[in-house]
Amino acid sequence: MAYDYDLIVLGSGPAGQRAAVQAAKIGKRVAIVERRRMVGGVSLHTGTVPSKTFREAVLSLTHVSALSAGTPTHRPKPTIHDLLHRVNHVIERELDVVARQLSRNNIDLVSGSARFLDPHTIAIDGGAMERHASAEHILIATGSIPADPPVPCDHKTILTSDDIVNLKRIPKSLAVIGGGVIGIEYASMFAELGVEVTLIDRHARPLDFCDTEIVDELIHQMRARRVTFRLGEAVKCLHCPDEAEMATIELESGKTIEVEAVLYSIGRVGNTATLDMEKSGLKTDDRGRLKVDAQFRTEVAHISAAGDVIGFPALASTSSEQGRLAVCAMFGLEAKPAPAGFPYGIYAIPEISMVGATEEELTKNKIPYEVGVARYAEIARGQILGDDSGLFKMIFHRETRKLLGVHCIGTQATELVHIGQAVLTLGGGLDYFLETVFNYPTLAECYKVAAYNAANHMRAKSATTA
Amino acid sequence: MAYDYDLIVLGSGPAGQRAAVQAAKIGKRVAIVERRRMVGGVSLHTGTVPSKTFREAVLSLTHVSALSAGTPTHRPKPTIHDLLHRVNHVIERELDVVARQLSRNNIDLVSGSARFLDPHTIAIDGGAMERHASAEHILIATGSIPADPPVPCDHKTILTSDDIVNLKRIPKSLAVIGGGVIGIEYASMFAELGVEVTLIDRHARPLDFCDTEIVDELIHQMRARRVTFRLGEAVKCLHCPDEAEMATIELESGKTIEVEAVLYSIGRVGNTATLDMEKSGLKTDDRGRLKVDAQFRTEVAHISAAGDVIGFPALASTSSEQGRLAVCAMFGLEAKPAPAGFPYGIYAIPEISMVGATEEELTKNKIPYEVGVARYAEIARGQILGDDSGLFKMIFHRETRKLLGVHCIGTQATELVHIGQAVLTLGGGLDYFLETVFNYPTLAECYKVAAYNAANHMRAKSATTA
Repeated sequence: MAYDYDLIVLGSGPAGQRAAVQAAKIGKRVAIVERRRMVGGVSLHTGTVPSKTFREAVLSLTHVSALSAGTPTHRPKPTIHDLLHRVNHVIERELDVVARQLSRNNIDLVSGSARFLDPHTIAIDGGAMERHASAEHILIATGSIPADPPVPCDHKTILTSDDIVNLKRIPKSLAVIGGGVIGIEYASMFAELGVEVTLIDRHARPLDFCDTEIVDELIHQMRARRVTFRLGEAVKCLHCPDEAEMATIELESGKTIEVEAVLYSIGRVGNTATLDMEKSGLKTDDRGRLKVDAQFRTEVAHISAAGDVIGFPALASTSSEQGRLAVCAMFGLEAKPAPAGFPYGIYAIPEISMVGATEEELTKNKIPYEVGVARYAEIARGQILGDDSGLFKMIFHRETRKLLGVHCIGTQATELVHIGQAVLTLGGGLDYFLETVFNYPTLAECYKVAAYNAANHMRAKSATTA
Repeated sequence: MAYDYDLIVLGSGPAGQRAAVQAAKIGKRVAIVERRRMVGGVSLHTGTVPSKTFREAVLSLTHVSALSAGTPTHRPKPTIHDLLHRVNHVIERELDVVARQLSRNNIDLVSGSARFLDPHTIAIDGGAMERHASAEHILIATGSIPADPPVPCDHKTILTSDDIVNLKRIPKSLAVIGGGVIGIEYASMFAELGVEVTLIDRHARPLDFCDTEIVDELIHQMRARRVTFRLGEAVKCLHCPDEAEMATIELESGKTIEVEAVLYSIGRVGNTATLDMEKSGLKTDDRGRLKVDAQFRTEVAHISAAGDVIGFPALASTSSEQGRLAVCAMFGLEAKPAPAGFPYGIYAIPEISMVGATEEELTKNKIPYEVGVARYAEIARGQILGDDSGLFKMIFHRETRKLLGVHCIGTQATELVHIGQAVLTLGGGLDYFLETVFNYPTLAECYKVAAYNAANHMRAKSATTA
């Protein structure tokens, strides 16, 4: 049987884009289906790109940076218009980049909502008309959407992260329910804008996959921006009377919090509800997600899935790589999987990034290690940038001196961690950093300073045990 | 014979500091001699640190950044006071860091001008009194000073780079004579401030150790900031009448340039003139520099030299490493030399950095290579930062696919290049970048995009030749 396409990709976010381009590069006929005005997916429209642009705009517009210390620049407070103008500008530019990339690779972009008719055929509802298209392979890369709050969400007082790009004004007070990556990022950005932020999470600590010392520093710095943490506290109920100006949150502990807005950011669910999945022969889990094997194949062998829709880690970076690997697998192309140690970036203010193991993991696994620390305050570049609160640490194996992990909080942390990632992946260790010359002044000098620090610790201990 | 110290270090710049600390760490008695108010050396007072801070202040104070596109922020033009205030602030902080580091390591800081009395003894003229001190080893790390202009330098109209930190106002027009790193850096900064800049160099191209494409891009971007390049042109004479408001430069070609200020930046000479070198048993070359062997020893075995005073490459980063290696060698400590591939950073606007080979070198050496390019405009982080003119390229060996060089012009270039440096030093290549997941959105994504670009070129060529 002749199919219309070799591959139909559902969704044009990072996973879908990279998959479509990879298939096109090896000469396959590819279509990518995306809802009208949603090319680029959630990542581009309400997720990664807008939130990171919002962050940069916040920093650029509010930061009475240490750079102008002594030359007071009383800038007016930015309005939501100022912030979102920039966000929309970047979205437009990126849309253009994505659209050009698809067209350059002769990928058909089909506009509309997709649903399965049978395991090889997709119906695309493009508004006035419906189109059908069949393909030998199908990749589901439809991403995720925020889980619904337990009360009706009016998108004005009760928000999910998708509503930020449509805010009409900056609230005076904000409660963030959920201290995951998204909750922490927005909580810190609004705090930077001078909003009175309360962060509520039922866990005793936010971001529990991160290094403890780094999270302590984050909490310390967010408190300095007047964020109130309500950790280990569960929400009992959330009221938002119609037409009311304020929402009220009651905690199980009896505390009551009144705020102008509530950002509900507890989890995301796979964006599969409208796909008529049963006609594909597949079932999702209770959070709308699909299960895949190591080649990103679902239980129906010619249907693969990649990106947020398959769950963890749900990062734009890993999703993109999954899209590529899924396509390589379906067309029998050899492709080595990404090295295990991908980095995490948390675009809070301040920025956090990590790669490799945490002290907690190593302790649990009884791996002997030594830590080396550098503070931005001791680094010329930190001074020049006006960031003297950054903290950088590396963990080395006590015997082999191999690098095991890098953890950083501060300006450009998400960039900086890639140097350590290369050394980690390529099997380098302490001596690489002791011997290498870095540009001066750069933040990369943190690697040198932290390496000396670790070397001193090792020497001190050898001396003691000798 | 008992010496006062195991080591006396002359100069407290990057080479001297690191040397003194290294010696102290292994229990040696160390003194470091520095002129009053010059702790940290030229690097801290008139060189690297002030120029990079000046640059950051220029960017922060003038950059009507693309980030505020659409929200016009008419900031007043910065004054020289605004700029230098920040510079002085950073110098003070760094001074503190250096002073604390020396004191924490029990290093005697002796204030005054040093000169040799004999090969083991130094006289230190501290103003009211003169001190003598002897040491088993001496390290000369006195750095360099700008070469004198061919006419008397009034430090107001005719300047060297040392005078920038004492400027009283920002000139309307500036001629920079000498298109080396220092000349290019200041020319681009003053152009960013709106100064009408003319750059004169007798070579046909500035920065000839850099990749041609990168330098072309730099020239293009500097021209967009209205810099006039007079390349391949020699200065015939330079007039600066007493009390005149303008200087006049006549070129050999007959052109005449009238400007409010001239920055003379042709070369630097070793800062050895006042050391009474002949009493040490050593001679300098005609540019005041000392010759050393691979262990940084001079011809007098117990006297070593490191940093700018030994000439190329005269970067703070390499000088620091030289200081450490010199001390390891003199006290018989094992220390592997730094890998050959140290990076270059040029803190122009825009920033340039490179590590490894250029296309020109590889072509000359008949090494087959393939290039991969990424433009910041295609990278989400570039859009978010508002830098859409950055250019990034990697060079891979055509057969082994090993990384041979990284060249970058754009925001954070000096940081970004360290990822490539690690891969280059640890022997990684194209596949590392194809397989690795980077944080998104970061500028590090340039590595991924450029790697795909190179892989496509290779595939296209294999297809052609297959």
